[in-house]
Parts: sequence; structure tokens; C-alpha cells
Amino acid sequence: MTEELDLIQLAKSAKDAGYALAKATTEQKNHALMCIADALMAHKDELLRANQADLDEARANGTSEALLDRINLQKRLDGIINDIRTVASLPDPVGRVIEERVLPNGLRVSRRRTPIGVIGVIYEARPNVTIDIAVLSLKSGNACILRGGKDILRSNMAIIAVMKQAIIQSGLPADAVQLIASTDRKYVGEMLELHDYIDMIIPRGGADLHRFCKENSTIPVITGGVGICHLYVDESADVMSALEVIYNAKTSRPSVCNALDTVLVHHNMASAVLPRLVDKLYPAGVEFRAEKRAMTYIQDLCYAKIVPAGDDDFDTEWMALILGLKVVDSLDEAMAHIRQHSLGHSDGILTQNAEHAERFLNEVDSSAVFWNASTRFNDGGALGLGAEVAISTQKLHARGPMALEELTTYKWVVIGEGHIRK
Amino acid sequence: MTEELDLIQLAKSAKDAGYALAKATTEQKNHALMCIADALMAHKDELLRANQADLDEARANGTSEALLDRINLQKRLDGIINDIRTVASLPDPVGRVIEERVLPNGLRVSRRRTPIGVIGVIYEARPNVTIDIAVLSLKSGNACILRGGKDILRSNMAIIAVMKQAIIQSGLPADAVQLIASTDRKYVGEMLELHDYIDMIIPRGGADLHRFCKENSTIPVITGGVGICHLYVDESADVMSALEVIYNAKTSRPSVCNALDTVLVHHNMASAVLPRLVDKLYPAGVEFRAEKRAMTYIQDLCYAKIVPAGDDDFDTEWMALILGLKVVDSLDEAMAHIRQHSLGHSDGILTQNAEHAERFLNEVDSSAVFWNASTRFNDGGALGLGAEVAISTQKLHARGPMALEELTTYKWVVIGEGHIRK
Repeated sequence: MTEELDLIQLAKSAKDAGYALAKATTEQKNHALMCIADALMAHKDELLRANQADLDEARANGTSEALLDRINLQKRLDGIINDIRTVASLPDPVGRVIEERVLPNGLRVSRRRTPIGVIGVIYEARPNVTIDIAVLSLKSGNACILRGGKDILRSNMAIIAVMKQAIIQSGLPADAVQLIASTDRKYVGEMLELHDYIDMIIPRGGADLHRFCKENSTIPVITGGVGICHLYVDESADVMSALEVIYNAKTSRPSVCNALDTVLVHHNMASAVLPRLVDKLYPAGVEFRAEKRAMTYIQDLCYAKIVPAGDDDFDTEWMALILGLKVVDSLDEAMAHIRQHSLGHSDGILTQNAEHAERFLNEVDSSAVFWNASTRFNDGGALGLGAEVAISTQKLHARGPMALEELTTYKWVVIGEGHIRK
Repeated sequence: MTEELDLIQLAKSAKDAGYALAKATTEQKNHALMCIADALMAHKDELLRANQADLDEARANGTSEALLDRINLQKRLDGIINDIRTVASLPDPVGRVIEERVLPNGLRVSRRRTPIGVIGVIYEARPNVTIDIAVLSLKSGNACILRGGKDILRSNMAIIAVMKQAIIQSGLPADAVQLIASTDRKYVGEMLELHDYIDMIIPRGGADLHRFCKENSTIPVITGGVGICHLYVDESADVMSALEVIYNAKTSRPSVCNALDTVLVHHNMASAVLPRLVDKLYPAGVEFRAEKRAMTYIQDLCYAKIVPAGDDDFDTEWMALILGLKVVDSLDEAMAHIRQHSLGHSDGILTQNAEHAERFLNEVDSSAVFWNASTRFNDGGALGLGAEVAISTQKLHARGPMALEELTTYKWVVIGEGHIRK
């Protein structure tokens, strides 16, 4: 594991494989995906043994149960392999014509979707990401270079060995999928400077990883995956429906980035909403951080855990069963709060006032904005994309859920008959 | 001019102005553009005096005629002001719906175009860029922060003062257009780290500026504007048409990034094409850098300046009346040469063989690829976009000519009726 890696050589061979992959037909790529699915299934025992070794070491190191669960492939592998077959069934974005027209001078101009080239992905202790990203990259004609967390190195090495074998068998270049097989963190820094070979970096992990990549990469980085998500209960909200949406957004999966962090309530709704909200959410184990005014409506509900909101509470992504509560005097105050505290991930309004909804949807500048729907829908699968690479909260290239199309770029194709520019 | 600037304050006020601008209607933005055009016209004498002072100082410093020409607004200002009225007439990309559908669960999902926020532009001695970028940013609902070359500071300060006055008069916030009014280069580095306020950096200048931005920015950078452009004369090219296209691509404006740098000729065409090519181009003042084999076809044409190609010649963007010449044995060899030497800007094939053309258009990975047309068409105006901010050769966000739409991003808009994620 301390062997020196030649990252430039690895990246060069990924780039060359990317050229070959860019020319591959949809049939060839789908065939490769089916070979990968079959091979992972055939080598399941071997993969799970490697994964067990990672789990054993992590447990011996005192790793938390939550992290062990992320590392664990044992119950998840069949589902992941099934997902590969789903990706094979999705339409291929490569070659799609975006726009086509004939200019007045007769020049035929179009834009065609092409693969980006080489995608670099840096992630943590989730071996499922290794398979996901390799498969989505391959389908979209891109090579990928993967750097997973140190806790899953054995799992990743086993997975990649099986995948490479399957890719060769399918007739495509095995170098299309590359693993940085080392736990040494120096390679992350090196990887971020390989702009001659890598075209895009996708970090998948917490805010620190995203910040590190943004500050140290000379390659374009897709940042995201971190959200402080708001729902604003407007004056005219349907109370029962609002409570259902809030319950879903907070409790259905509290550790993910589109989970709710803060509820803002119009003062005219505070007495109708806040006590009921506490009543509905506390049995699910939710604790509350209430700003002073919100507190006045719920301080008597002593069966629930309600704490006064501290200075940083409205700037915290909870990732847990905690919910911030605040009373506001208007839609404008709600939007101002969101502008100040949101990270531009997922924010919504609960209202029956279409004019207020339209203002909110237009003026709140987040990757996804919601009207009478749970923030949990900001997800590639839930929005109908069929897959997800990441959720971007930056504004260039792709915003919100990224799927196959977001792993492509385009080129201008210009066809003339000896046309010259006057 | 040595006064300290508070860049963070400047960027913050740009960001706030951006929020206001994002809400502005198309009518408000177009009205502001017309106010700007009128104000620049009304203050023409004042602007030209400031520009003359820049010109006088630059001339006293021994600045080259080519650079003086770039600085000079005297003959250009009327045209630039006219262009502002044209931008006002272009469609507004903001608010456009990209895709709209109803999911099986009834959720209404669409993507709406929104401004990016704050655009930072770093450029050299071209005061026309100041007006261009400010106008295109405003039309697309973005604030901008401009840092032009030291040689045009007086021109820029005069232009910006007039524009700000006009923007105020139109009812939009003057802070939407910000100038870094200093010649101190340290502000370029500071600007590149203001990722909390600036959403996108567009460098407009040479390769060194692009490299500097890429390596020092924590903000996404649009690199481009530098090209080593190729035309490949295939076995079945129409010789006369090929010569016209090559002539146009090389001589119509040799100092721009889409000008031709290298001609590759299939060996079966070498004797028909190369001597005629020299004959046609040398009267326009073109010099040639010929690889060994190409040289054998033209070495007797002693009236033309033909030099053996040196080691770096095929990796040089000439920006001048110089043309590299090379004979290749096949389409594949031509594409391999392009892969190795192109910077992914503009590359084309001249052929009557549709199969070869299709392979070239698919496999050459440049921002624009051409079949029987001049590389000079890689330009926003020439491709029908009505405007141009820059030409991108990177693969994320936008590739090739960038116009108003490329100054926007999108948000997901999700509308439910109390929808929760199961």
C-alpha cells in the first residue's frame, strides 16, 4: 500500500482510453455494462470477502456504526448490480443533437453532445460509489479516475479488478476505469493538478472535501452535496399538508443533503403551525432549535426537546433529527433569511397563494426550489433522471442533480460548401 | 491610482446588485441598455478625451502600433454604441423554461434559466470589452466586476462613470457594473479568490492570462480564446474550394484565435495542393513553415518565404501571416496530429468524402469542427448567436462561442400539492 504510484501515467492511459470510449457505440457500451454486472455477480463472494476485511479493520479501529454501514456492501451488492442493468437501459446522451439550423448564408450549424473526457471523482467510505461512477462514466463515454476513502481500499481494489476484466472481455479499454490504489492523501493533491489529463473533478463528501477541492484544484470542480434546506410556511399554507411535507423533509432520511434544516413560519400561522409541528415530529425523535419568537409558541410543550437557537444554529447543516424554527413577518423576510443562510441546495414554500409561490420560485436562488413539495425530491432518481452522479450547488455546467447528460459537453459542428467568412 | 481598494466591499455590493438585477424585467433591462447607449453618445467627447490621454501615455511609453490600435476608441465608439442597441433587441434568456414535465406522481418539474450572479472579467488593453461585457452581463441579469489592462484605466473610469449614471437613471442599481479602478496587479489575485461573491471568471487575453487564472482562481474559470487551428485537405477535396477556404482562414484576420495555423495535406493531394497554396497565399504576405515531406513539393518556389518547420512550430499559435504545412498519409494520421497539437479550438476537414467528414466531425474533439468551411466561423456573431462574450475551449458549462444564454444557469422548479417522497 506504500508503493509509489505514477499518477501522470495512470491519467494519460485514462485519457487515451477516453478517446477510444468516445467512439464506442451505444451497443458496445451497454454490452460492457452487462459484462460488468455479470462479472460482479460471478465474483460476489470474492468482493464480499474483501469488503469484510475492510469492515473488520474499520471495526477494530473503533469506527462508528454509521460509517460501518456505509462501508458495508454485504446487503447492498445485489441492488447495486441491478442498478447497472438499469443504467444500460437509459438513453445514451452522446451524439444527441442539441440544436440544428441553417444560417442565411447556407452554413449548417448544430451542436452535438460529446463525452467530457476524463472524470476524476474523490469520495469517502462508500464502495457503492466506485461502481456507480464507473458505470455512469462508461455509459456516457468518459474514462474515470477514482479515489475512494482509505477505509474501503480493499473493497475498491477487488471491485476495480473485476470491472477491468469485464471491460476487456467486452472489447473496450480497461484503462477507462482507473483506481488510485493508495491510502496516501498526497495523491488527492496531485490528482487535482492534472489538468492536462482530467477534465472535471467531482468531490463526493462533506463540506471540507468540497472546500479542499475548490481551493486546490486547477481542474474545474463540481461542488455541492451540502445543503442548509428551508421550508417557509406562508400565511395561506394548508396546515395539515404543510405538516406532512415538513415531516417527510425532516425525518425520511435526516443524514442526506436534501433533508430539511430550518422551518420559517409566517407570524399569522405560528400559533396554528408550531405546536402541531412539535407534536407531529417529536415522536420521530426530532429535537428543536427555536428562535426567541418561535419559542413563545411552544415553550410549554415540555415533553419535546426544545432548545433556544444559538448563534450558529441557522448556519448548520444538521444531518440529524434536529430542526431550526423561526417566525418571520413576511415572505420578504423569509426570502431574506434564506438568502443569508441557505447554501443554495433545496428551499421551498408551502402556500396556497400562487403569487407568493411564483415570487419565491423566481427569487430564491437555489439549485432546486419547491412549492408545496418536500425538499427530499432534489435527487436524480426522484426528479426522473434515472441516475445520479452528484447534486451540484454551484452554478456552472450543471445545477442540482447531475445524471448522464451532465457528464457530457457539446461541440459545434459546422458544415459548409467551401464557405468563407466575409 | 495608488489608493487602496476594498475589493470585498466592491464584490458584496455587486452581489447585492445582482439580486436586484435578477428580478428585473426584460423591459427594465432593455431600457437600461438604451439609457447607456444614449449616455455614452452624449458624453462621447469626454470619453474620447480620456481615451486620448491613455493613448498619449501609451505612445510615450513606446507601445506598439498594434496595441495602440486596440486601445483606440476614436473611430470605434459609434459602432460600439450601435452594438448596445442590437443587444437590447436580442431575446432575454432569463426565465426561459428548458424542459417541463409532469412525473408519474403528479409532481410538475421544470428547469428555468436564471442569471449566474456576478461575472468577473479580466482583460487587457481593449476598452470596447468594458462596454461589451457590461452590456451583455446586464442584459442577462448579471452583475459584473471588470478588471481591464493598465493602459486603459482612464478610458475605463470614464466609461464606467457614464454607464453607472445611466443605470441609475434607468432605475436599476449602479453597483451592477463595477470597475477595479487600479493598475495594481495584486487585485487580480485577490479577485480570483472572492468565491463567496463572484460566480464565474472570464479571462480575455493570451494563454498566460488564462493559465494564471486557472492556477490561481478558486472561482470557476472559463478558459479559451487560444487556438492552434488546423485544416486537413483530404484525398478527395475539391482543390479550388480548399484553397479559397485556406486563404480565408489564414489571411482574413491573422491575429485572432480562430485563424488557421496549420494545413495538413493527404499525400495524394500534395502535388496538386501545396504549390498552388503557396502561389495563392504568398502575395498576401504569408510565410510558410514546411515539414520535410511538404517541403519537397514547394522548395523550388523561391519567390515565397518557405522555411523548414522547427520542433515547436506545430505547437505555436501564430497570430500572424505564418502557416505550417505537413503531408500526412491518411485521415487517421491527420486526426492523430490534430489530437497532439490542437488546443481544441477550431479544426476542419476539406473533403468530398462524407464518410471521412463524419469521422472527422465525430472524432476530433474541438470546440468547433468544420467540414468544407473556414475556421474563422467559430465566433458568436458568425454562428448566429448575435453577440459574444468569449470563446471557450474548456469543456464545462459552455464550449465554443458564449453569448447571452451562456451567461445564465438554471434552477429546478418543483411544484407539488403537498407531495412527499416515499
